Amino acid sequence: MKIDGRAFRSIWLDETDHWSVRIIDQTKLPWTFDIARLSNADHVAHAIRAMQVRGAPLIGATAAYGVALAMRADPSNDSLTQVIAQLAATRPTAINLRWALERMEQSLRTHPPAERADIAYQAAAAICDEDVATNRAIGTHGLSLIEARARSGRRVNLLTHCNAGWIATVDWGTALAPIYRAHDAGIDVHVYVDETRPRNQGASLTAWELGKHGVPHTVIVDNAGGHLMQRGAIDMVIVGTDRVTRTGDVANKIGTYLKALAARDNGIPFYVALPSSTIDWRIADGLSDIPIEERAASEVTTITGRALDGSIATVRIVPKDSDAVNPAFDVTPARLVSGLITELGICAASEPALAALFPQAREPMAA
Amino acid sequence: MKIDGRAFRSIWLDETDHWSVRIIDQTKLPWTFDIARLSNADHVAHAIRAMQVRGAPLIGATAAYGVALAMRADPSNDSLTQVIAQLAATRPTAINLRWALERMEQSLRTHPPAERADIAYQAAAAICDEDVATNRAIGTHGLSLIEARARSGRRVNLLTHCNAGWIATVDWGTALAPIYRAHDAGIDVHVYVDETRPRNQGASLTAWELGKHGVPHTVIVDNAGGHLMQRGAIDMVIVGTDRVTRTGDVANKIGTYLKALAARDNGIPFYVALPSSTIDWRIADGLSDIPIEERAASEVTTITGRALDGSIATVRIVPKDSDAVNPAFDVTPARLVSGLITELGICAASEPALAALFPQAREPMAA
Repeated sequence: MKIDGRAFRSIWLDETDHWSVRIIDQTKLPWTFDIARLSNADHVAHAIRAMQVRGAPLIGATAAYGVALAMRADPSNDSLTQVIAQLAATRPTAINLRWALERMEQSLRTHPPAERADIAYQAAAAICDEDVATNRAIGTHGLSLIEARARSGRRVNLLTHCNAGWIATVDWGTALAPIYRAHDAGIDVHVYVDETRPRNQGASLTAWELGKHGVPHTVIVDNAGGHLMQRGAIDMVIVGTDRVTRTGDVANKIGTYLKALAARDNGIPFYVALPSSTIDWRIADGLSDIPIEERAASEVTTITGRALDGSIATVRIVPKDSDAVNPAFDVTPARLVSGLITELGICAASEPALAALFPQAREPMAA
Repeated sequence: MKIDGRAFRSIWLDETDHWSVRIIDQTKLPWTFDIARLSNADHVAHAIRAMQVRGAPLIGATAAYGVALAMRADPSNDSLTQVIAQLAATRPTAINLRWALERMEQSLRTHPPAERADIAYQAAAAICDEDVATNRAIGTHGLSLIEARARSGRRVNLLTHCNAGWIATVDWGTALAPIYRAHDAGIDVHVYVDETRPRNQGASLTAWELGKHGVPHTVIVDNAGGHLMQRGAIDMVIVGTDRVTRTGDVANKIGTYLKALAARDNGIPFYVALPSSTIDWRIADGLSDIPIEERAASEVTTITGRALDGSIATVRIVPKDSDAVNPAFDVTPARLVSGLITELGICAASEPALAALFPQAREPMAA
């Protein structure tokens, strides 16, 4: 997507040396647009751990380049084993990270060390290109939903939660891919962006990337979406997801469930956009089978922003003696989901529909 | 209620001179407990406008004492007319403010100036005492709901939104009155406190007053309530309200509707606590008949808290080029409300039930 008119991906090779890796330091958004250079595996490990890159697809792509950087410095078996272990430990729960590292290891282990650096760079580039193609296909399918609501040129108002945009992936994003496709096709789209407390990925990342690409948008507090739906201000909800069961239950950022309930109560379609790699074919009940990460209370009790003097400051917003809890995700039952937008097309959030769309990917059922 | 073991109301006469008025400066909570002295009507007007006092019942009580202070300085007809106009202009939309000023004027106008100061102080004190009695009665009725869930000594987990506590009234509060009554009766209650973006009255006021009285509580982001309900962590929701239609539709702080939807989806009772003065007998459809205040976007784009150095700082949390909208209230349809807890008892959120409980108060229907 574009930043002030210039096309970017979220990760790319350095224009000069062609082997070091460039990323947008997302910890500094939206206040500073800072491009970081990653020149060895330690840099990559730090970038993932410090969340300079985040979003499961982008974490996987960055880790793949981390392996390539290590192979350039030392292509030995020991070096390969060491870098895989080092990078796998950065974010132990991210499924895409492990997937990317396994794929890199499989590509490299059987080749002689002298060939490994070249192969690794090619494999990392392929992971990135595949992610872009997957997300672009999600955008194509989702675009049809927006087009259907744009008849007679009226503005289409969408609502999204958290950040499932291009900077969470290599390009296009998942939930935002249909919106970018529609905007680029000249459809008048406008996005209500949930700020997404506690980490405010909506206010700080989604609003930033939509604004830089030129997509009209309005930030709202997470409390406001239901009211806007009651008043007819929202035509469709599109969100991303961290994990989908084979039955169509959707784990996503905390608060997604509340918006799905409001969409259902107001007859507004609620779509979830995802690459099929997000489907966990082993599990059938989102509420009982998807573990929900509990994060630090400090994410609730404090918030970071830009002070009047331009400095970045963290302030506490909860009394010092009050506790907080911070569940990071919730589960939206399939019954509240209008459809799943995948790279192969749109299907109902149900076991038969998912099995029909992905006949190969589905593993044997436990029962 | 108590602050660190000492009983307080939110407004009282000075212990020494017995005529100036003391309030807790709520703009400084939760970081500083500062008692302000109001010695004339200008002080009172400033306190209401600057939101040193807030919450409809407390605004009315403070305005009543503003009239008393003016009568002490100058009990003439002109002075009475002037102070009523001055105070009515401070918060033009607060219904309790106009009600309190009209009641003060009716008490004073027919009496000779020489008697007005004494009468005004008595009338203001009566308004305060009646508010306390009303809220205590709400607490008594709501207590029965909590007691019914406390059988066999198990902890009762409640969720509330915004601040409908004792510092929004003269004492006890509305939504929190049943909780204080239960806590003081030795029932093991615990309150999940929605932070209540954008103004964070939950995190900064409700958490503060519960903590100071010693009620166990946990602050959560507004996104988390649905997840906690899905997991069985919440037994009952109690909120306050700014206006209730004669049919039981409930206007309250933005985001209340989302919690009502989640409570319904999970079979959890959702109660609204209110003095009957909050019922607007003229209107029947909350969505079409209750105007929703749109407040400044800056309440969404910035947030204020305490910096590491102890100073109070405001930080921006939305990109500088992104817009925001800020509807302050939403409407929860009566169909989602389990019951209304009033000073006369608990009734269904319906026109027949409200009419039966308040046969006198009800004005003739338009139709």
